[in-house]
Amino acid sequence: MPSHNFGAGPAALPDPVRLRLGRMLELGPNGEPSLLELSHRGPRFTDIAERLRSGLRGLLGLDDSYEILLMPGGAQLQFALIPMNLAAQAPAAYVESGYWSKLAVQQASAVARVRVLASSASTGFTTLPALGAPAAESAYLHYCGNETIHGVQFAAPPVCDVPVIADLSSEICSRPYPFATLDAFYASAQKNLGIPGLTLLVMKRALLARVPASLPPILSFRAWSESGSLPNTPTTAAWIACLEVVQWIQEEGGLSAMAARNALKAERLYACLDRHDAFEAPVAHEARSQMNVVFRLKNRAREPEFLRAAAGAGFVGLEGHRAVGGIRASLYNAVTLESVEALVDFLDNWAGLS
Amino acid sequence: MPSHNFGAGPAALPDPVRLRLGRMLELGPNGEPSLLELSHRGPRFTDIAERLRSGLRGLLGLDDSYEILLMPGGAQLQFALIPMNLAAQAPAAYVESGYWSKLAVQQASAVARVRVLASSASTGFTTLPALGAPAAESAYLHYCGNETIHGVQFAAPPVCDVPVIADLSSEICSRPYPFATLDAFYASAQKNLGIPGLTLLVMKRALLARVPASLPPILSFRAWSESGSLPNTPTTAAWIACLEVVQWIQEEGGLSAMAARNALKAERLYACLDRHDAFEAPVAHEARSQMNVVFRLKNRAREPEFLRAAAGAGFVGLEGHRAVGGIRASLYNAVTLESVEALVDFLDNWAGLS
Repeated sequence: MPSHNFGAGPAALPDPVRLRLGRMLELGPNGEPSLLELSHRGPRFTDIAERLRSGLRGLLGLDDSYEILLMPGGAQLQFALIPMNLAAQAPAAYVESGYWSKLAVQQASAVARVRVLASSASTGFTTLPALGAPAAESAYLHYCGNETIHGVQFAAPPVCDVPVIADLSSEICSRPYPFATLDAFYASAQKNLGIPGLTLLVMKRALLARVPASLPPILSFRAWSESGSLPNTPTTAAWIACLEVVQWIQEEGGLSAMAARNALKAERLYACLDRHDAFEAPVAHEARSQMNVVFRLKNRAREPEFLRAAAGAGFVGLEGHRAVGGIRASLYNAVTLESVEALVDFLDNWAGLS
Repeated sequence: MPSHNFGAGPAALPDPVRLRLGRMLELGPNGEPSLLELSHRGPRFTDIAERLRSGLRGLLGLDDSYEILLMPGGAQLQFALIPMNLAAQAPAAYVESGYWSKLAVQQASAVARVRVLASSASTGFTTLPALGAPAAESAYLHYCGNETIHGVQFAAPPVCDVPVIADLSSEICSRPYPFATLDAFYASAQKNLGIPGLTLLVMKRALLARVPASLPPILSFRAWSESGSLPNTPTTAAWIACLEVVQWIQEEGGLSAMAARNALKAERLYACLDRHDAFEAPVAHEARSQMNVVFRLKNRAREPEFLRAAAGAGFVGLEGHRAVGGIRASLYNAVTLESVEALVDFLDNWAGLS
C-alpha cells in the first residue's frame, strides 16, 4: 500500500532528495570520514555552503543588495531576533492573519514597541485582514505570507512605504514571488527547504546598519553577516539537505514549475471539498492557502473516525494542528499530484458513503 | 588505506552510530515516511524524545532536581542566553581559561554585569587559572571544562558557594563527572553527542525561578522547560543521532569505560610528543586536555609539510584552530585507540626522520 505524506512539517522530502541524503553518512572511496563527520570550515563543507548560497540566490532571483543568512532556531527565533535587530529605533507594525503572525507579535512585544496594524482574529482567521498603511515612521511592516494552521495565504506582499518583512516559512519556493518588493524575509527549512535545523533569512544589506552594537554577537544579524553565517558550527545536515532540495527544484523546472504543480494540487483538493456536503473548508475563497488546506467534517463527531480511516488507507499527517483541531492536508512541493489524487478519491468515497 | 579522523567537530561518529543513522532516511516496511519526514509531535518522534531524555538522565546520573533542555544554536547561543536568563539580578563571575571561555565573557558582557574572576591569558592559556572565591552575591560562576582550541582541561569543577555553571561541550560523556556539584551545564552535540544542531542544557529546576518574565518566550529557559523543549520544531536528525550515541555509550560500558579508553589514548599521544625533541606540547602537564591534544613542531616552518604528509597518510582534521595555528588531535569518544596508535607511529616515524 503506498503512503501519502500530508504532514505540516517536518514534511515529505522529494524522493530523489531523500535517497541522495544517505550519502552524507557514507565513507569516502578511501575510507575518508562521511560529510557529517567533517569540519564545517574544511573544503568539502565550504563547497556545499557556497553552492547553497549561490543556488538560493539564483532560485530566488536575488541581486547583490540582499544578504543571505543561514541560521538555526527556526522561524520563532526570528520572531525575537528581527525586532531586536531591526526595531530598536522605532515601533514595528505587524499584521495578524493567524496563529503564527500572532505569535510573532507576542515574541516581538517583549523586545520592541509593536503596533498591530490589522488583524483577522474577529473572523477566526478565516479571512485576510484589510491592510491599512502603517505609520511612516514604522521600523517595518511584518506579515506571514502563509499561515500553516489557519490555512490562509496572501496572494502578494502588502504594498507600503516602510520596509516589508515576510515570514515565508510555509510557502518559500512554492511559486515565483516578488521578493524584490521585500526588504527581508525568512523561512524555516522543514517545509519546502529540507529538514529541520536551518532558517533562511534574506535581507537588504542596508538594514544591517540598524543592528544595535549592544547586542551579543550571537544574536546580532551584523555579526552573522560578518562571519558568513558561521559564527559557530552550523547544522551541517540541514545545509546539505537544503542544497539537495534547491538542486531538485532547479532540475524540476524552478519556481514556475513548482507553482503550476501546486496550483493544480490545491485546485483539485478544494474542488473536492466544495462539491461534498460532508466537508467544510472554512477559509474564504480568496484567502485559501495553496500549501495548507484546512477543513472539517460537517459532522465534527466523526472526525476521529475519519482520521483513523485515512491513516489506515496510508494517509499520513492529516490531523489538524493541536491549537485548532480538525483536518489539514499540507501540499508542499514534495507532495505529488498522485498523492493529492489519491486523497481526493478517498474523500469522494468517504462523502459517498457518509 | 584506513582513515583516522581527529577533527575537533563536527567530529568522528562511532561507526555503529553512523551506520544506524542511515535508518532515519529509510521508508517504513509499508512505504511509511522516513523518520526525518514525520512530525516532531507524532508518536515515533515522541518516543525518541522520551528515550533521549531518560537515556541522558541515566547516563549522566541526574536526579529529578535537574531539568534537561534540548536546544538549538550551539554553545555560543548559551553564552548569551545563560546571562540573560540567570544573571538579571546580580553580576556573574567568569573564569577565563582559553578561547571559548573568553568568548563566553564577551557575549555575556553585552547582556549582564560580568566579572572575570580569574584568567590564564598571561600564559597564553597554557595553564589553568588559580580560582579565587567569587563574591558571595554573584549570580553564578561560569567556567569551560575543556578548551578545545588551547587544549586545557580542568580535572574537576571549582568548589565555591555560588551556583556553578559549566560549558562541557568538548568533554561531556568522556568520563564520569561530578555533575551533582554543578547547578547547570551545557554541551553542543557535535563532539561527543552526535551531529550539529542540538545543545544539551541541564540545570537545577530551582534556577528557573530566576528567569525574567520579560524575555521573549523563545529566549526564555522557563518557556523552553514548559514546552518540554518543543516550543517549535527541533533539529530532529540531531536528536535521533544523540539517542544513538547515548545508546552506544551504554552498550560500550558507560562513562567509566569511555574514561578508561580516553585516558589511555591521551597518555599514549602525550608520551609520544614528550619523547621527541621534534614536537612541543605547550600546555602544562596538570592542565593538559584528554580530549584535544595541541602541539607544535619545534621547527614551525615545517608544519605545513607535516600536515600535508599526515593528510596523505590518512589522518584527517589535524590542523590547529585558525585562531592559534599549529596542530591538534581531538580524541573524542569515537576516536579509537587504533587510530591513536596509528598517529603515534606516524609521529615516531616523523621524529626519527626529521
